[in-house]
Amino acid sequence: MTSMNADKIPDIIIGRLPVYLRALQRLAEKGISTTSSQELGEIVGISAAQIRKDISQFGEFGKQGTGYAISFLIEKLQDILKVDRVWEVVVIGMGDIGHALAHYQGFANRGFHVKMVFDNDPKKVGEKIGEFEVYNTASLAEKIKQHKIKIAMLAVPASDAQSVADQLVKAGVKAILNYAPISLTVPEGVRVQYIDPVTHLQRMTYYL
Amino acid sequence: MTSMNADKIPDIIIGRLPVYLRALQRLAEKGISTTSSQELGEIVGISAAQIRKDISQFGEFGKQGTGYAISFLIEKLQDILKVDRVWEVVVIGMGDIGHALAHYQGFANRGFHVKMVFDNDPKKVGEKIGEFEVYNTASLAEKIKQHKIKIAMLAVPASDAQSVADQLVKAGVKAILNYAPISLTVPEGVRVQYIDPVTHLQRMTYYL
Repeated sequence: MTSMNADKIPDIIIGRLPVYLRALQRLAEKGISTTSSQELGEIVGISAAQIRKDISQFGEFGKQGTGYAISFLIEKLQDILKVDRVWEVVVIGMGDIGHALAHYQGFANRGFHVKMVFDNDPKKVGEKIGEFEVYNTASLAEKIKQHKIKIAMLAVPASDAQSVADQLVKAGVKAILNYAPISLTVPEGVRVQYIDPVTHLQRMTYYL
Repeated sequence: MTSMNADKIPDIIIGRLPVYLRALQRLAEKGISTTSSQELGEIVGISAAQIRKDISQFGEFGKQGTGYAISFLIEKLQDILKVDRVWEVVVIGMGDIGHALAHYQGFANRGFHVKMVFDNDPKKVGEKIGEFEVYNTASLAEKIKQHKIKIAMLAVPASDAQSVADQLVKAGVKAILNYAPISLTVPEGVRVQYIDPVTHLQRMTYYL
C-alpha cells in the first residue's frame, strides 16, 4: 500500500493501468472532470474494489466521497507508465498489419510515434506508405542505434520473427510488440507482448 | 485440483491455455512428440510450476518423469477451449485491420474460419477482398442470424464500435474481439476481448 516500487507491483496490475488510462482519457474527451471507481469499473468491466486497490498501490489519488479528479489521475497514470513523453517506435513487416500500424491514428496523445517502417521485400523497399518510406530490414540495426529506438512492433511472418527479434535486441531494443503467432526468446531485461487474435478468440470460446 | 467446472476456473488461467496450445502446436509442427513443463515454460515465459498447476485444474494430463504427450495435450486443450471444431466468425470494418483479418492465415487449424466481412462505406460494399465480397453493415443482423454466427471481430472506428456491438448482440453474437480503442458495454453472457496495441506498449514502457 506504499508508493512506487517497480519490483514490487505485480505485472498483472501494471497491465490494467493502460486500460484505466484509456477509459479516463475518453471521459476527459467528453468534457467530464471527475469519476468514481464504480463508474470506471462499469466502463472497463473490472470491480470498483479492484480498481481502488490497484490505484492505491501508487499513492492516494482519490478522495472518499468525491472520487477521482480525471485530469490529475490521467497525469499520474501517464507518469507511472512513462507515457508522459513520446516514445519513437519502429514497425517491421509491411504486410496488412504493418500497414495498419503505419496508418494507425491511435498512437497520438498516448505516448508513441511511429518513426520508421521496414520490410525485406525488394518490391516494398523504397515504396511510400503514407508519410513513410519503407526501409530495407538489412538497415534495421544501424537505424535503430542511430535513433536510439527502444520499442519495436514486429509484424513479419512467424518464420522470420525470431531472427528479426534477435537483431532488434542486439541493436538495443528493450520492448517488442509481437504480431507473429510465435513465442519469442529474448534475454532478461527485454519485454515482449503478444498480439494474436486467435488466443483472444480461444479465451472466449471456452465460455460458449 | 479436481476436473472441469467452467464456473470455478479463474479466467486468468483460461487466458493462458491458448498460449500453451499455440506453443504445443508449434512443437508438434516440428515433429516433436513429448515435452515438459520446463520446456514449455521456457517457450512461453511462464514458470514450470504455474504451467503444471494450470493444466492440473483439468485433470492429470502429464506423467511424472516423462512429461506431456504433445498430441494428447493438444487434443485436451482444444476440447477444453472448444476449438476441437471450427467456429464461423465475421469481420466488421474493412480498413487496414479488417483487411489483415480477412487475409490472416493464422485462423486455420486453430478453430476459426472467417465466413463474411462487412463495411458501411458504399465505396467498399460489393468490392472483392480475397475470397470475400464485402457486405453492407446494414445487412449484418440478418446475415448473422441466418448463419447462426456467435463470434465477431470488430474493426470499425471507435465512434461506431458501440452501436455495431449493440447490433451484434441483438443478432445473437456472444463473443466480440474488439479492435476499436474503446471499452464496450455488453449484457451479461456476452464476452469481449480487446486488441489495442497501445495498452500493450504502455504495459512495457513502465519497465523501461
